[in-house]
Amino acid sequence: MKKGACLYEGKAKRIYSTDEHEVLWVEYKDDATAFNGEKKDVLEGKGVLNNEISSLLFSKLKEAGIQSHFIEKLSSNEQLVKRVEIVPIEVVVRNIAAGSLVKRLGIERGTEFNPAILEFYYKDDSLGDPLFTEEHIRVMELASVEELSEIREIALHVNEQLKVIFETIGVQLVDFKLEFGREQSGAILLADEISPDTCRLWDIKTGESFDKDLFRFEQGNLQDGYTTILSRLGGINSCSK
Amino acid sequence: MKKGACLYEGKAKRIYSTDEHEVLWVEYKDDATAFNGEKKDVLEGKGVLNNEISSLLFSKLKEAGIQSHFIEKLSSNEQLVKRVEIVPIEVVVRNIAAGSLVKRLGIERGTEFNPAILEFYYKDDSLGDPLFTEEHIRVMELASVEELSEIREIALHVNEQLKVIFETIGVQLVDFKLEFGREQSGAILLADEISPDTCRLWDIKTGESFDKDLFRFEQGNLQDGYTTILSRLGGINSCSK
Ligand SMILES: Nc1ncnc2c1ncn2[C@@H]1O[C@H](COP(=O)(O)OP(=O)(O)O)[C@@H](O)[C@H]1O
Ligand SMILES: Nc1ncnc2c1ncn2[C@@H]1O[C@H](COP(=O)(O)OP(=O)(O)O)[C@@H](O)[C@H]1O
Ligand SMILES: [Mg+2]
Ligand SMILES: [Mg+2]
Repeated sequence: MKKGACLYEGKAKRIYSTDEHEVLWVEYKDDATAFNGEKKDVLEGKGVLNNEISSLLFSKLKEAGIQSHFIEKLSSNEQLVKRVEIVPIEVVVRNIAAGSLVKRLGIERGTEFNPAILEFYYKDDSLGDPLFTEEHIRVMELASVEELSEIREIALHVNEQLKVIFETIGVQLVDFKLEFGREQSGAILLADEISPDTCRLWDIKTGESFDKDLFRFEQGNLQDGYTTILSRLGGINSCSK
Repeated sequence: MKKGACLYEGKAKRIYSTDEHEVLWVEYKDDATAFNGEKKDVLEGKGVLNNEISSLLFSKLKEAGIQSHFIEKLSSNEQLVKRVEIVPIEVVVRNIAAGSLVKRLGIERGTEFNPAILEFYYKDDSLGDPLFTEEHIRVMELASVEELSEIREIALHVNEQLKVIFETIGVQLVDFKLEFGREQSGAILLADEISPDTCRLWDIKTGESFDKDLFRFEQGNLQDGYTTILSRLGGINSCSK
């Protein structure tokens, strides 16, 4: 597989073409951003940690029967994925109240949800990724009713699997964000990444955060938190010194 | 009926008890507020206009079979209503894109929706009345699933009736906000007000606004716009000089 042109540079990853049209080359960056780009830094090793964790989680989901764009890990900070047309919706699944839910709606931090809450945010940085509803998605023609119900179903299935994966390593899956895309056939496929950048992960015993909140609220060393997640998942930080 | 103590003073109305426990006395004020209280003014005659228009619209809805808290108009700026326990949800029905929909989601102003879009906002001034979803309402236990589906049904029914009422007088019903409450029996009842403070109303021919946007964006004289609505509806501005 040959790496081609850089098609897109996002906040956390660079996407390259390859010599196969349906395959993309993803490079995880060390850049950290929060609060819609207001807070920024470069955190050495973050790209490697997220690539390792995301590869591991997509592999574990595959074992559980959940397909994703993930093909294989190429190097410590690179992976191959299936090309999709990203649906511009950030799908958030919440098991425990934290973050914007607490701030926007005044729900008490730590409140447990069972069944989980599913939220849709319009993936548009210039608008600040606003919360929206299925009715907005319908009139904006971002996804069909059928696609949305498939996305909802996959997201909840992912939640069930991830909850168990994290519980097994003593971590509470508080909430997480997923992105979906359309394959060439039109089928909906889980895409993007699943990492401590996109999940809230709390130590079951201590309540300690192992996720991007370490960076957002300067609660501690981000790389240490992500390394804890990777090693508890049984992975090896190929970049640790 | 005797006016009792002032139970609550809101941004637009004062609510008084009466000698009947289940009946409240509403006084419409001349205060105008916008942008979550950031913009304020006193606009002489607004209270009368809103009381007249709201009384008229609730009466017309009743003729169309839609019950509300409205009992009778008492004076130019007062009416009697049934006491309810307000459900802290602002229900917004949208036929045409305007306002926050355009700003938050980038939908083009003037886009028509058929069927209408229904949105729920958490009625909480300290949080800025944020948009939220049926799932949030469920976990916050603000209304039961059954109540919410009844609220949705009534809101869409009100929309069908109001659309016709306004079309007949050459006005487009762009969007509007409703509030609902629980009667002592627990039954859901349409409450609060329906006025140019809570609707967006555009002249079908000229596109001119006859609603609170006149005040929000200083587009013209608010009282003139509201008077146009009242007189086209066949009402008389009992306070006009
Ligand atoms: N399989 C895929 N095919 C095409 N695009 C993808 C795929 N997976 C993720 N993407 C997109 O790659 C972009 C780069 O990722 P990221 O750096 O996280 O961007 P962003 O700043 O938008 O969050 C994002 O727009 C993401 O939606
Ligand atoms: N039938 C009713 N019974 C009890 N409260 C009501 C009824 N109708 C409206 N209300 C409430 O009366 C209050 C006063 O109205 P308003 O001045 O518009 O207040 P706000 O500043 O909350 O918008 C509001 O909280 C409204 O929800
Ligand atoms: Mg991203
Ligand atoms: Mg009000």
